Amino acid sequence: MAADHDAVLAANQALYDTFEARDPAAMEALWTGDGDIFCTHPGWPTLHGDEAVLRSWRSLLTNAQHLQFIVTNERAFVVGDAAWVTCDENILADGGAAGGTVAALNLFRRRADGTWQVVGHHGSPVAR
Amino acid sequence: MAADHDAVLAANQALYDTFEARDPAAMEALWTGDGDIFCTHPGWPTLHGDEAVLRSWRSLLTNAQHLQFIVTNERAFVVGDAAWVTCDENILADGGAAGGTVAALNLFRRRADGTWQVVGHHGSPVAR
Repeated sequence: MAADHDAVLAANQALYDTFEARDPAAMEALWTGDGDIFCTHPGWPTLHGDEAVLRSWRSLLTNAQHLQFIVTNERAFVVGDAAWVTCDENILADGGAAGGTVAALNLFRRRADGTWQVVGHHGSPVAR
Repeated sequence: MAADHDAVLAANQALYDTFEARDPAAMEALWTGDGDIFCTHPGWPTLHGDEAVLRSWRSLLTNAQHLQFIVTNERAFVVGDAAWVTCDENILADGGAAGGTVAALNLFRRRADGTWQVVGHHGSPVAR
């Protein structure tokens, strides 16, 4: 359904808005639900489970320099109560310096209340 | 269901067996079905659609040196007719030289006949 498609794209954008806002509690809320979660940050091994994934986000949101994401080429795919979005993260670091492009895949699972939980993220640097 | 879980893990292994066998027709069969497909090879931008994705596999299977994959840490997640597997691709090049580790996510969608179509692959090198 087009409504699902739009809701998944909005959930995807919320992930980047929350990163930019550097808000660990809001990030944790996006990932909270019934599904097992995993996360592969660029160059990292894959992390599994609430503890490891949420700790990584707290660390990134607390310690990393302020990053701005210009998200392009979003494409959403919905299969029942699962969904995924592919997109490009065009990253600007402090002062607007170009920080490269990350090819990203974000996975979502529909919660019982109809909202979409983030259950997976995989980002990898695109070689220039 | 445990049976779904096992079937998805078998479909995941088939992806690597087919890569090792360097068989473009078998690779194309794994990706064929109703779902839109995408593929993010390590360092590449994300490719979308049958033409671009299958061309990339033909090129890799025809031109790349012979690679052997020791796949570890497979974890399967099934949500209705969608599924994904995270795993590590431990790559051995010709002569058994270690070629590094790729963190991979493979996405699947259940076909009408109950088999699992590969609909997405995202691989990224793990920094040492």
